[in-house]
Amino acid sequence: MIDPAQLTADLIRCRTVTPDEGGALQLLADLLTAAGFECHRIDRNGTPNLFARWGARGARTFGFNGHTDVVPPGDPASWTHPPFSGAEIDGWIWGRGATDMKSGVAAFVAAAVDFVTQTPPDGAIVLTITGDEEGPGKDGTRALLDWMDQHSERMDVCIVGEPSNPDRMGEMIKIGRRGSMTLEIEAQGKQGHAAYPHRARNPLHALTRLLYDLTAVPLDKGTEHFDPSGLQITTIDCGNPASNVIPEKARATINIRFNDAHTSDMLDRMIRDRAEAVATATGVTFQIRTDVSGESFLTRPGPFVELVAGVVRAETGLDPVLSTSGGTSDARFVKDHCPVLEFGLVGHFMHQVDERVPADQVRQLARIYRRILEQYFA
Amino acid sequence: MIDPAQLTADLIRCRTVTPDEGGALQLLADLLTAAGFECHRIDRNGTPNLFARWGARGARTFGFNGHTDVVPPGDPASWTHPPFSGAEIDGWIWGRGATDMKSGVAAFVAAAVDFVTQTPPDGAIVLTITGDEEGPGKDGTRALLDWMDQHSERMDVCIVGEPSNPDRMGEMIKIGRRGSMTLEIEAQGKQGHAAYPHRARNPLHALTRLLYDLTAVPLDKGTEHFDPSGLQITTIDCGNPASNVIPEKARATINIRFNDAHTSDMLDRMIRDRAEAVATATGVTFQIRTDVSGESFLTRPGPFVELVAGVVRAETGLDPVLSTSGGTSDARFVKDHCPVLEFGLVGHFMHQVDERVPADQVRQLARIYRRILEQYFA
Ligand SMILES: [Zn+2]
Ligand SMILES: [Zn+2]
Repeated sequence: MIDPAQLTADLIRCRTVTPDEGGALQLLADLLTAAGFECHRIDRNGTPNLFARWGARGARTFGFNGHTDVVPPGDPASWTHPPFSGAEIDGWIWGRGATDMKSGVAAFVAAAVDFVTQTPPDGAIVLTITGDEEGPGKDGTRALLDWMDQHSERMDVCIVGEPSNPDRMGEMIKIGRRGSMTLEIEAQGKQGHAAYPHRARNPLHALTRLLYDLTAVPLDKGTEHFDPSGLQITTIDCGNPASNVIPEKARATINIRFNDAHTSDMLDRMIRDRAEAVATATGVTFQIRTDVSGESFLTRPGPFVELVAGVVRAETGLDPVLSTSGGTSDARFVKDHCPVLEFGLVGHFMHQVDERVPADQVRQLARIYRRILEQYFA
Repeated sequence: MIDPAQLTADLIRCRTVTPDEGGALQLLADLLTAAGFECHRIDRNGTPNLFARWGARGARTFGFNGHTDVVPPGDPASWTHPPFSGAEIDGWIWGRGATDMKSGVAAFVAAAVDFVTQTPPDGAIVLTITGDEEGPGKDGTRALLDWMDQHSERMDVCIVGEPSNPDRMGEMIKIGRRGSMTLEIEAQGKQGHAAYPHRARNPLHALTRLLYDLTAVPLDKGTEHFDPSGLQITTIDCGNPASNVIPEKARATINIRFNDAHTSDMLDRMIRDRAEAVATATGVTFQIRTDVSGESFLTRPGPFVELVAGVVRAETGLDPVLSTSGGTSDARFVKDHCPVLEFGLVGHFMHQVDERVPADQVRQLARIYRRILEQYFA
C-alpha cells in the first residue's frame, strides 16, 4: 500500500518549478516500474514528461493526467514552513504543489498501483504526467498525446486530477471548460497637437470606441452546461508622456473565455468586423494578433460521467455539480484524444503562499480514484 | 533706425534654449536703455525676464509682450544652416527662433525705438520680454505682470508678438484663445483572474466606459467667436503584461481645449460627475488630478481691435480674420492685466528643423507695429 499523503510530501521535496524536473518524474517512474508499469520518459524541447502503462497496449484503458511542475514559491521567507519542505503538521502537508497538484498525482498513482497490485483488472491503465502544465505547455501533455498517437497508445476515458472542488470534497466535477483566446490590438492613428485634432487621428479615441463596443454588451447569457462567456480588457498602453500631443499608436490586450455558443474563429471574425467598422468611421487602422489557447469543450453527461459522479457521491455524501467553470487546464488537449473529466482536491491555496493540503483529503481522493477504477473494470 | 531683420539675426546668435538667457535680454536692455527706456531685469527662480518702459509711469501706455527663449534645435546636423547662425541667405534669415519669436521681439523693439526717437508720443510704451515662454512659464510673463502690479506699472492695451498668420502676412489677428486643462485619471479596481471576473473589478472596463462617454459626443458646437471645444485622450496606460490577469489600476490623461461656453471649473465638475456615475455602476473608483493651464478669454471686437485690423489691412491689403484658434500663449496671462491681441509673423517652421523667416516679412511686421503705435497715440 502506498500512502498518497506520504507520496505527496516526497514529491513536494522535489524542486519542480517549471520547467525543472527536480527528480519528481524519476521518483514516480521508479515506483511505477516496480509495480509493473511500462514507463517512458517523453521529453520534448527540454520539457520532461512521463508516460506509464500497466496492462496490454490496445486493451480497454483508463487514463489519468496530471502535472508535477509548480509555480514559483515567491519569497520563501513569507512562508510559515519552507515551500519545499513537505512538512506534515497537525494533519496538513505544507509546500508548493500541495494542492496544485502533486497531491492529485500522488493520489492517482497510489490508487493505480494498489489497484493493479491487489486486483489486477482485465484492461490497461495509462498515466500521463507532465513537467510543464504551469508554463507554456507546448511540450507537455501535448507531447505525451502526440507520442501516444505515434505509438498506438490510447486511453478510452481520462480523468485530469486538477483541484476541481471550490470548497468541499465532492461538490464539483468539471465536465468541460470554456475556451480561451487572447487578442493583441494595435491602433495606428496620426500624431498631432492636442489643440489641432482635425490635423491628427487619435488612436485612443478609436480604441476606446472599439473596446467600449466589445464590453458594453455581454457576449451571451450562458448555455445549457456553460456560464456566460466573458471578455476582459487586460491592458491598454500608449506611453505618451506629453499631455499636449495626440499619440500615433496605442495597444490593448483582451482575453476571452468563451462557451460552446462560440468558436474562436467566430469571435475573431466578430472583433475584426467591429474594428473594421471603427476604422472606417475614424480613419484609425487596427492590427490584431489572435492567440487561441483552446476551444471550449464538453464531455456530455453519460455513463462515464455517471460512474464518476456515483463514486464521488458514495465516498463524500455530496451530489457533485457538473460544471464547466474556471480557467483552462490540460483537459483542453486530452479532450481531442478521449472523453475527459476533471476531479481532484479542494482548490484552496493554489498558487498562494502557505499552500497546504489536509493529508486525509489526499487519502480520500485516492480512495475515490481506486473505486472509480474498480467500477470501470467491474 | 534699427533694422529688425538684422536684430533678429543678432538674437538668433544668442543661445537661448529655455531657460538660458544667452545674452539676448542683455543685448535688448542695452539697446533700449540707449534709446531712453528704463529697463529692469525681473528674474524669478532663475528665469530671466526684461521689463522696459519709455515715458512716464502711469501715462497712457501701449504694451508689447514676447519671448526670447526657444525650443531645442534637435540634432544640429539635420539643419541646412547651423541653428544658431542667424545666416541671411537669399533673403531668408535662418535659425532657431527665426519665426518663434525672436523676429517678433526684434520687430516690436525696432518699431518702439524708432517711434519714440523720431516722434516721441504723449504717453508710454512698455515692453515685457520673457526668457521662459516655451518652458513651464511659471516665472516668465507671470513674474513680469506680478512685478508690474507691485510697482504700479501698467499697460492699457497689449499686443503679443507671436506668429499669428497661418500662411500669409495679414490674414489673421488672434483676439482670444481657448482655455486648456489637463486631467489625470486613475481608475482603481480589484485585481483578479481573467476567468473569474465576478471576483474582480476591471478598472479598464470602467475607464473605457468613462472615456467613451467623454468622447462620444462633442462638448459644444462652437460659439460666436470660438471653434468647438475639443477633448483629447492623450494616453492610457496600465502596464499589465499578463493576459490572464485583470489589473488593479489603470491611468489616462485627457486634455481639453475649451471655448467661452465653459470654465475649467464647470468641465472639472462635469467629468467628476460622470466618473462618479461610472464608479457607482462598476465599483471601480477614480482619482482625478486637474491642472488648468488657462481659462478661455476673448478681447471683444471694439476700438483697439479695429485700430490693429485697420493697420494690418492698410499694410498688407488683406482683411484679417479675428480668430481664437490655436494653442495657448502668454496672452492667457496678459488678458488678466489689460485687453490683449496677438499679431505677428506667418507661423511656418515653428519648432521645426530649418526654422527660417523672410527678412522682408520681419521688416513689414515692424512697419505694422510702428503704424499701430502712431495711430494709438495720434
Ligand atoms: Zn494545476
Ligand atoms: Zn512662441
